[in-house]
Amino acid sequence: MSGQKNRQVLVKKLPDGIPLEDDFEMGESAIPEPQDGTFRARTLVLSLDPYVRAVMSGRHFYGAPKPGDVMRGRSVARVDASRHPQYREGDVVVMESGLQDYAISDGDDVHRADTGTAPVSTALGVLGMPGLTAYAALLGPAQIKEGETVLVSAASGAVGSMVGQIAKINGCRAIGIAGSEEKCRWTESEAGFDACLNRKTDDLHARLSELAADGADIFFDNTGGDIQNLVMTKHLAVNSRVILSGLITQYNLPEAPPGPNLGNLCKMRTTVFGFVVYDFEHMRERFLTDAKRWFAEGKIRFKEDMTEGLETAPAQFSKLMHGDNFGKTLVKVAE
Amino acid sequence: MSGQKNRQVLVKKLPDGIPLEDDFEMGESAIPEPQDGTFRARTLVLSLDPYVRAVMSGRHFYGAPKPGDVMRGRSVARVDASRHPQYREGDVVVMESGLQDYAISDGDDVHRADTGTAPVSTALGVLGMPGLTAYAALLGPAQIKEGETVLVSAASGAVGSMVGQIAKINGCRAIGIAGSEEKCRWTESEAGFDACLNRKTDDLHARLSELAADGADIFFDNTGGDIQNLVMTKHLAVNSRVILSGLITQYNLPEAPPGPNLGNLCKMRTTVFGFVVYDFEHMRERFLTDAKRWFAEGKIRFKEDMTEGLETAPAQFSKLMHGDNFGKTLVKVAE
Repeated sequence: MSGQKNRQVLVKKLPDGIPLEDDFEMGESAIPEPQDGTFRARTLVLSLDPYVRAVMSGRHFYGAPKPGDVMRGRSVARVDASRHPQYREGDVVVMESGLQDYAISDGDDVHRADTGTAPVSTALGVLGMPGLTAYAALLGPAQIKEGETVLVSAASGAVGSMVGQIAKINGCRAIGIAGSEEKCRWTESEAGFDACLNRKTDDLHARLSELAADGADIFFDNTGGDIQNLVMTKHLAVNSRVILSGLITQYNLPEAPPGPNLGNLCKMRTTVFGFVVYDFEHMRERFLTDAKRWFAEGKIRFKEDMTEGLETAPAQFSKLMHGDNFGKTLVKVAE
Repeated sequence: MSGQKNRQVLVKKLPDGIPLEDDFEMGESAIPEPQDGTFRARTLVLSLDPYVRAVMSGRHFYGAPKPGDVMRGRSVARVDASRHPQYREGDVVVMESGLQDYAISDGDDVHRADTGTAPVSTALGVLGMPGLTAYAALLGPAQIKEGETVLVSAASGAVGSMVGQIAKINGCRAIGIAGSEEKCRWTESEAGFDACLNRKTDDLHARLSELAADGADIFFDNTGGDIQNLVMTKHLAVNSRVILSGLITQYNLPEAPPGPNLGNLCKMRTTVFGFVVYDFEHMRERFLTDAKRWFAEGKIRFKEDMTEGLETAPAQFSKLMHGDNFGKTLVKVAE
């Protein structure tokens, strides 16, 4: 690989509020060589995810990065040099690569990109961690049952769209909340939700009172904030379950705002689960078996917001954190 | 019963803020006669409970009372006339009698006052609904395990003191939070908690950081408010469980204040249960078997704040809602 360099997206400064393109800068290093027990992989498609903003604030169990660090991120990557017993050149994997062309791994937290007939990029979306998040939460703690009403925020995203589609596959009613008419249209007509409310233009309280007069049996919360407050205080059903999966509304804030009053949880005998997908690795195989079959049967739609070129990653991340993305936010880095 | 009257505590006006003695008035009616399928009971000891304040605000699934209604309340009572097939004169029961000398019941939601060697008043406290609340929550949803740290607010009350004592019986560490030095002393030296913090004088954050550096495995919340906020955002352990049982800090408020930010629940993979004891009737028999044995073995201490005379009930209720009671708040009405 002589002459070539490893391009990297570095943290320039820790963002203040919503991350801007300018909070990052491009850098480069020599292309690393794998040592015994490790492999090197070429990044193909990068995933940009809201939780990384929480990491940057030190509010995630991963530590906060420092200026100069390679920005964290998962990717689909192809092994191009290996001294690891289980990975060979040409293997396509999902790994924590960081935002760079090449990364070294010891195989920890690496999965083979097993997507069947679906595009390999879905290993970062509906057939990857976001899909597993929806699947494991609904079938695990939320104990989804046929005929229930499932309400999900950020409904057109990778997690949200899978929540609604898995709900439909399980014979439930799916109601989404999303941030634009375009997102709502896709969520209803493509992803097959029964309804999707526009949080910017709909009167959510009035619409939810009509659509789910007895409240949501399952509320899958990706956003926190006003939506969480409204749903948890006024739109839960008796014996409801709440999955706290994401808090995108507050990742940009300097400190955590107050949450919903919890009185209604007693009244409704609600159970709330702080959900971390990493605890559900044991469901991954079952998820992939189901999800690949559903995909092959045409039951899974997905939407991607993909740009090309590693250097587009900072702007894509900023767009995501502004809520202006539509679909799973990705960057194509190489073929 | 000719010549005698049935004295009653009536709601005079719905309280604004903390209920005052003057929000109630004494009234009387004829002593009622039981019809076929009902019995009449003479109130012996009345229970005064914080949740009744929530009822008065219409925030409970029981409807709100109107001025002139008999104030709601449970009591230990003795059947003194029966046309009910299952209850005979002399039977001692726990029932929703309201605050009055005599009440009629069709047997629904009536239990025999089964306290073994303990005083009959404990059927309203540690061996009654408050005791069942602690028992069912810890052994049911909270899934208490030996060696865990159990933190409970309002620790010297009937529910709180049982939470800590059942925690100790199960080989756990019990930490309480209470509202006076006297309550804390009793909670530690009589009820056997490992520690009890005074919410009025202790720096709760600092003390909890010392006493439970890894956080509470179980937080049993009877109060809501600042304590709920502090514990749920800063003092939960990984895989912790929170029982939302009472919200005494907000029953007097005109509207529900914001709650804790829920971000920490994700980080700690916490499960929160909105707990309603009425859902756990199936555990009552098991509870009574255990609790009467524990009582006989000297493992259960209890504290009562009992006055004499039906007419003392309004002042007792007001004292309870001011947080000035110490122990289970009761009114002795008859022998």
